[in-house]
Amino acid sequence: MGVNLNKIVLAIDIGGTFTKLGLVDPKGQIIASRIFKTGANEPFEIFKELFHTEIFRLISNINSENIVSAIGIGAPNANYKTGTMENPPNFNWGQTIPLKKVVQEMLNYPVYMTNDANAAALGALRFGVGKGMQNIVVLTLGTGLGSGIINEGKLIYGQYGMAGELGHVNVFPEGRQCNCGLKGCLETYVSVTGMKRTVFELLSNSNSASILRSYSFKDLTGKDISEAAHQKDGIALEAFKRTAKILGGKMADTVAHLEPEAFILTGGLSQAGDLFLKPLKNYMESALFNAYKGKVKVLLSKSTRTEAVLGPAALAWENILTKDNP
Amino acid sequence: MGVNLNKIVLAIDIGGTFTKLGLVDPKGQIIASRIFKTGANEPFEIFKELFHTEIFRLISNINSENIVSAIGIGAPNANYKTGTMENPPNFNWGQTIPLKKVVQEMLNYPVYMTNDANAAALGALRFGVGKGMQNIVVLTLGTGLGSGIINEGKLIYGQYGMAGELGHVNVFPEGRQCNCGLKGCLETYVSVTGMKRTVFELLSNSNSASILRSYSFKDLTGKDISEAAHQKDGIALEAFKRTAKILGGKMADTVAHLEPEAFILTGGLSQAGDLFLKPLKNYMESALFNAYKGKVKVLLSKSTRTEAVLGPAALAWENILTKDNP
Repeated sequence: MGVNLNKIVLAIDIGGTFTKLGLVDPKGQIIASRIFKTGANEPFEIFKELFHTEIFRLISNINSENIVSAIGIGAPNANYKTGTMENPPNFNWGQTIPLKKVVQEMLNYPVYMTNDANAAALGALRFGVGKGMQNIVVLTLGTGLGSGIINEGKLIYGQYGMAGELGHVNVFPEGRQCNCGLKGCLETYVSVTGMKRTVFELLSNSNSASILRSYSFKDLTGKDISEAAHQKDGIALEAFKRTAKILGGKMADTVAHLEPEAFILTGGLSQAGDLFLKPLKNYMESALFNAYKGKVKVLLSKSTRTEAVLGPAALAWENILTKDNP
Repeated sequence: MGVNLNKIVLAIDIGGTFTKLGLVDPKGQIIASRIFKTGANEPFEIFKELFHTEIFRLISNINSENIVSAIGIGAPNANYKTGTMENPPNFNWGQTIPLKKVVQEMLNYPVYMTNDANAAALGALRFGVGKGMQNIVVLTLGTGLGSGIINEGKLIYGQYGMAGELGHVNVFPEGRQCNCGLKGCLETYVSVTGMKRTVFELLSNSNSASILRSYSFKDLTGKDISEAAHQKDGIALEAFKRTAKILGGKMADTVAHLEPEAFILTGGLSQAGDLFLKPLKNYMESALFNAYKGKVKVLLSKSTRTEAVLGPAALAWENILTKDNP
């Protein structure tokens, strides 16, 4: 007599600071999870050992009604097509990290991997505010600016698996120096780090009093800028305005490429809420080509930090469900 | 006893000046064609009558071995999803022109319609230099700048059928006035009209001698600028350089969205050949994000003006072949 087992997936979110593991059901319920420090500055071998231990701790607790059917991984600069992390910034793990292969050697399940922003886009589409939509662009506004583009329900991967790097569209040809070597990349303006740079630019150009004059660049956080803005600090408000103006213009350009139904914003900067969202919508709208005006939504992701595993979980589920119904 | 008929398609390319009709086989051979003046400034009813006459003249000559299986239409501002031309510039036919319906009422075949640049992209993919590729961006550099984006072998239509208007991404926030109402749109710099504006800007800013000082804005053509450049006219060369720099930067931004295998350029500006192509490739390359450097081709379409029907023909064939092998 057969037993009906419930399919679940193992989801892995690798961040610069923390790695999160989760067992996730088809509805996006997180059945069990673990979190540990990634140790991105240590050699990859050290991570590998800890990773192995944590994964087996997690799956050893799976009860007999559930069965893991696939593994999804989201990681910085991960390439869906090659299964490697390619030159991830802030990681000391080497140039090309064969993460997919490492997981495949650990566990005998199908493994799917993509970059963290692509995974976030799949998560928003299957479990988040993008549910039921077909065409969305997800922007992760954290330390940098990541993006995942969904067209007709599927991620755009591009010719070699690296499409959707909107953090590196150009704002000003001779603009701010970016970590990538180019100048004027969007993420040097629109990200938590970009906002800090804008605050310091404004502080250098003006004489006006500001709460933000008490912070070093190193200590200043996105939250500090938000709080200053809520207290009507002129510098903080201007920094939000400039950031919204730049991003709004670039979102209009993205619409001219893709005509999405909605943008979905996530990450540190998105947590400023209406302070950022309202001017952003207005700036985008004023820069849109006629055919698009009044049609494109701008939404905030409601998922919390612990839900980061829902992105890679969605990647795994997408692949399972495509196989079940080819 | 059955007879094996060869399927062909009726392809219609509606331009601001000429309308071209063609009967096209699956290999892109144009079996028969007709061309007539569109009369975009006359009322739509006048066009409709002439259109009807020309179409029936063309199909009355189909021999008994061939059978029309579908109709493809490429037209300015045509929307694949609604089947209408929406506010086409330089047309006096009204706001929303139900062209697909008009053709359906004339002839009892399946009708497919999209904008001219999207059709050109499908033509390049099936019959042109994009043959065998999966991810391309076609730019039509004529009076304006049109674009068609192919991802995994299929056009990106977007949420409401109007994706791919790269002529309206922004170059400078307070830049040149565009016909669309916005300022600084790419097509005000990169198009035959944009080049003319650049030439006049250069003539106004410098004192240097130039062949181009003898032309009125109205009389100056793209060909005149190309010929002047070939004669090493400083103003003409500088105009090509500036145009290539602006387009190269924007192509790098498009790569950050889509990571295509190739750009394919067509239309008046592309006919300048290496004069334009060489600096364009260099500027694009220098603006590309690391992950994309050295990977993206820039090609010139080799199709001639009479082959404009191959775009709408490819649209019709795509739909026939999808139905045959669903």
